[in-house]
Amino acid sequence: MNDRLSKFRSKYGPWALVAGASAGLGAEFAAQLAARGLNLILVARQADRLAQLSTTLSAEHRVQVRTLQIDLAEDAAPETIVAQTNDVEIGLLVCNAAYSAIGAFLDQPLEHHLRELNTNCRAPLTLAYLLGQKMRARQRGGIVLMASLSALHGSPLIADYAATKAYNQILAEGLWDELRAWGVDVLACCPGATATPNYLASRPKAARFNSGSAMSPRAVAAEALTALGTQPSFIPGRGNRLAAFVMHRVLPRRIAIQIMGRTLRQMYS
Amino acid sequence: MNDRLSKFRSKYGPWALVAGASAGLGAEFAAQLAARGLNLILVARQADRLAQLSTTLSAEHRVQVRTLQIDLAEDAAPETIVAQTNDVEIGLLVCNAAYSAIGAFLDQPLEHHLRELNTNCRAPLTLAYLLGQKMRARQRGGIVLMASLSALHGSPLIADYAATKAYNQILAEGLWDELRAWGVDVLACCPGATATPNYLASRPKAARFNSGSAMSPRAVAAEALTALGTQPSFIPGRGNRLAAFVMHRVLPRRIAIQIMGRTLRQMYS
Repeated sequence: MNDRLSKFRSKYGPWALVAGASAGLGAEFAAQLAARGLNLILVARQADRLAQLSTTLSAEHRVQVRTLQIDLAEDAAPETIVAQTNDVEIGLLVCNAAYSAIGAFLDQPLEHHLRELNTNCRAPLTLAYLLGQKMRARQRGGIVLMASLSALHGSPLIADYAATKAYNQILAEGLWDELRAWGVDVLACCPGATATPNYLASRPKAARFNSGSAMSPRAVAAEALTALGTQPSFIPGRGNRLAAFVMHRVLPRRIAIQIMGRTLRQMYS
Repeated sequence: MNDRLSKFRSKYGPWALVAGASAGLGAEFAAQLAARGLNLILVARQADRLAQLSTTLSAEHRVQVRTLQIDLAEDAAPETIVAQTNDVEIGLLVCNAAYSAIGAFLDQPLEHHLRELNTNCRAPLTLAYLLGQKMRARQRGGIVLMASLSALHGSPLIADYAATKAYNQILAEGLWDELRAWGVDVLACCPGATATPNYLASRPKAARFNSGSAMSPRAVAAEALTALGTQPSFIPGRGNRLAAFVMHRVLPRRIAIQIMGRTLRQMYS
């Protein structure tokens, strides 16, 4: 193991917990963390996918892998996860689980919006709190919360989703400043369109629309893990950073929201 | 009644619901809406304050005022409010209720953070959804969600509070674009320091710190009601708008967060 990997492992190891690990970006984070020598706790709703990933990663990288089938929308889920992993030291938390209700806000069942709030906000808040306590006590660790480029301003058709992602960004940024005195690195990761299997399969129009510009999950995870410990929030991809600069810092908010609205309506309706 | 008032009343009347109405900014919104001829439903936890405000406003402005004592942190609160006001037309929703846990994130009880999430996010989400359905059906109405200057970037010592306020801003901005086609105006109101009784009484150091720059609740509410229908999100106060421009559009996020951290630590610790 080279020096860089050994440093990463002693800072963020020996175990990493990846919430929302069954596919796409979560599975990619898991694979890259296993490659860096961290043992894994993989959390998601789909047991079969978790089992498959566990088999692959433990064989390929000779790390221990545990799986936990749980729905992060449930109020008790974060406490259950922490209770069931109390016997190991979790040095890194990657909160990738997210629920996304796409369509006009008032046309979705309220239940879907509440599921979004629970999965995307309540779960990361609680996991960051409970695992953050232990990291602070050990004076080392890392927490990655997933935000989104869509959270920089209002985003029609994913209005509540974007709001939950803004919550993650601002929470992570505040914790970045609070926890760095304790040796705990916090990062808000704000990806743009990412070519995850879910994204490509369930939204054929979106996939076509973004075929040229969507980043690979591999690149997003790699850039995020490199950014951890260097800054409060990070946008993977040079093109995304440029787009964010224009949308966020140059354009009036009203215009940015309307551009986002046009783009999302082309993609989704 | 002059033309401007009559227009306001036919667009946003005959009833307005103000959540978090017992004091400060909420009471000020209530007073200004009564002065514009709207009947009021005042929602808050403190029955005595609500009763007092109700007596004053109904006598001064000859409007009908109902009060509802309820804790918006409770899951069932929004549905209860809507069920109990089903017999009147609510044309304007002002979501001002907020819970704020001040101090290091990991030093607060988790319960306080969850109360923040419920009061500040779940309640506005649900109220905007349930009352928004009726406004869309009537093709008129308005929704004001309260964000905060502290939500433009991570804010140490109020990390979760700032995150909940970012949620409100991004949700309101998305809904602004979605609902204007239906004649429903949505506004994210992003005040800076405001000299509410709560703010001044409970935080003497904060009050001293901001004595020169805190806005009056009266000015914040007046500017917000004027901005409703003209833009997706609004920062009351020229000084606040200038500060937001510098913090948000000019400075790197890391620097903005650190400046905010220094400011909040001077105020609160």
